[in-house]
Amino acid sequence: MKIVVLGGDGFCGWPTALHLSRCGHSVVIADNLSRRSWDEELGIASLTPIRSTEERVAAWHEVSGTELPFELVDLLDADALTDLVETHRPDTVVHFAEQSSAPYSMIDREHAVFTQTNNVVGTLNLLFVLAQVAPDCHLVKLGTMGEYGTPNIDIEEGFIEVEHNGRRDVLPFPKQPGSFYHLSKVHDSHNLAFASRVFGLRVTDLNQGVVYGHLTPETAREARLVNRFDYDAVFGTVINRFCVQAAAGHPLTVYGQGGQTRGFLDLRDTVRCIELAIESPAATGEFRVFNQFTGQYSVRELAELVRRAAAGLGLDAIIEHIPNPRVEAEAHYYRPQNRNLLGLGLQPHPLTLEVLQSLLTTVLEWRERIDLDAILPRVDWRPQEAASPSRSAAR
Amino acid sequence: MKIVVLGGDGFCGWPTALHLSRCGHSVVIADNLSRRSWDEELGIASLTPIRSTEERVAAWHEVSGTELPFELVDLLDADALTDLVETHRPDTVVHFAEQSSAPYSMIDREHAVFTQTNNVVGTLNLLFVLAQVAPDCHLVKLGTMGEYGTPNIDIEEGFIEVEHNGRRDVLPFPKQPGSFYHLSKVHDSHNLAFASRVFGLRVTDLNQGVVYGHLTPETAREARLVNRFDYDAVFGTVINRFCVQAAAGHPLTVYGQGGQTRGFLDLRDTVRCIELAIESPAATGEFRVFNQFTGQYSVRELAELVRRAAAGLGLDAIIEHIPNPRVEAEAHYYRPQNRNLLGLGLQPHPLTLEVLQSLLTTVLEWRERIDLDAILPRVDWRPQEAASPSRSAAR
Repeated sequence: MKIVVLGGDGFCGWPTALHLSRCGHSVVIADNLSRRSWDEELGIASLTPIRSTEERVAAWHEVSGTELPFELVDLLDADALTDLVETHRPDTVVHFAEQSSAPYSMIDREHAVFTQTNNVVGTLNLLFVLAQVAPDCHLVKLGTMGEYGTPNIDIEEGFIEVEHNGRRDVLPFPKQPGSFYHLSKVHDSHNLAFASRVFGLRVTDLNQGVVYGHLTPETAREARLVNRFDYDAVFGTVINRFCVQAAAGHPLTVYGQGGQTRGFLDLRDTVRCIELAIESPAATGEFRVFNQFTGQYSVRELAELVRRAAAGLGLDAIIEHIPNPRVEAEAHYYRPQNRNLLGLGLQPHPLTLEVLQSLLTTVLEWRERIDLDAILPRVDWRPQEAASPSRSAAR
Repeated sequence: MKIVVLGGDGFCGWPTALHLSRCGHSVVIADNLSRRSWDEELGIASLTPIRSTEERVAAWHEVSGTELPFELVDLLDADALTDLVETHRPDTVVHFAEQSSAPYSMIDREHAVFTQTNNVVGTLNLLFVLAQVAPDCHLVKLGTMGEYGTPNIDIEEGFIEVEHNGRRDVLPFPKQPGSFYHLSKVHDSHNLAFASRVFGLRVTDLNQGVVYGHLTPETAREARLVNRFDYDAVFGTVINRFCVQAAAGHPLTVYGQGGQTRGFLDLRDTVRCIELAIESPAATGEFRVFNQFTGQYSVRELAELVRRAAAGLGLDAIIEHIPNPRVEAEAHYYRPQNRNLLGLGLQPHPLTLEVLQSLLTTVLEWRERIDLDAILPRVDWRPQEAASPSRSAAR
């Protein structure tokens, strides 16, 4: 199958591109390299020393004998996107190419506006280009479990049957996202649902949980194929961050009470989920939603798991609760469904102590690259104090 | 009360500004005059000859003795918006300043992207400016009943209590909008709900139905105060369009079966609803939603009502069904609630034959300005034929 991976240089996109290539698909990577520019903007870096995209694809060609063309394309440039789709005529487009950090979107007005414009307009452009150039192409779009928020009922996959005043309908599951980033994904989902219906497109929206790990069998084959590993407070995910804190002898910093519970999955499951979605495409005009996670944990539970895994390696980690920079419920009901991908054959890699110890071992390997200053939160969800003296007292 | 009306030169904004001014509030109009530029872009014009904003506010000063300052501001310019709010320190901001036409948003990719960027970013900028400069200001934002679509259950006002697997929660009412314009309002609503919670803002989201009429007591006081009256296929609303067709001896063109049912209200009720929302502001951190309409009609019923009203004036109108340019259900359940504004004291102006005959009389007065070419639909919801030969056959 011919597959274009948009955002194919990123944390999920790169291992997905390699995995699909190894599965025998003809894969093209497209990326505008903005994730690398955000590193520069924020003065942060992947713990692992990632190579340039050119070196990466050259290395993949060397080890696999397979071409992995790279196209420098920004989704905001609709003409370039049209050229990309016309040139490669993909059967499937996998779309990771969005600003993916909640804290980044909450830095200030400019970053909120950038995140929503970049994500929403990029996806709108893609929908129009597909409708006009490749209407039968299957679009596999990455959303987030964070679109749902933390309702007091079970979270279904995209839709829910509602009974009200004696009548019934199956409706989009109500969304209560918790940052301007998560909101951008909610906006995308509404746009995707409409475009699939009106333009007759095939669309799969993958509401992904928080990813842990950074290795896949493909990225592990060669040093130049190494995937990025983010642990900073803006782009790092919680398990990676705790592992870096444990390795560095720093307390594991839990935001607030730590009862915040989310869906999680191993990066190896991310790439397999994409493969499964591609192999059983959505029908023409269908907008389907899969919840893409394999287990759920509270932040407090994760800190305790990492503490135990670290102890097994002789690392003595302590857990510290710090003020929560986010506005979110710190104790809540959480029970999301994930039947769809399991039904397609997903076999999860559970979050075992062994998985965490393998992560910790990787972190110890790159220990000298850790920048502890990057870990502590520096973005607050609430308005800046100087601008709002009356409310800052309540913080 | 000090009130800034954003979009105060438009179809709803202008009569609202005059009404609030007449009620004794200190009103400032802000507008970027983009509605006038869209007339030029599309080669259309208001049936009534509207004056420049400068002439309008001068005329209001003459007849009422009241100042109505006009500020030329684009909401995409956050610095200008900050200056506006810092200069006038409003107690309430009424926000009409969005691209308001579904067909305009469906013209092509550029117009879809423009509509969502203009509306979403303008509102985001406003939320940040209010949070930083005027956190106690009440934001009264215009949404649309079209955010809900046509679900098979009763439509509540913004929220619905859902029971699922033995648990209950009150959640945002699921949204199924039918154009990139309606989608932009759904995106706004999600952003508003989040910002009111995180920034502690007071927000009222008014999901307005389709407005009929163009007169209010204030706009009727003087020729230079006349409100715009749109009847073209892009910006004209259905009742105004039928009245123009009847006056011109043209068949009343019903799209498809005509079973499409929507909520409607008189422009005189629009300005009163805004006043009621302002007089009972949302609490700090509250995001509340009012459904702003007074009656519901199918397109077929409206055509029949206009036909009868026209007959009473000696005009012999016929009804013609033409292919529906939109993708929408043409027969469906529809039962939205509108208790909130009635509870605040709204006394609706029902859609009587007299109201329609007064509208028809206005239209006859300006009959020589009718451009019949502007009425027939020229924007199709489906992708263009040339680009998608396989699907055009199904149209």
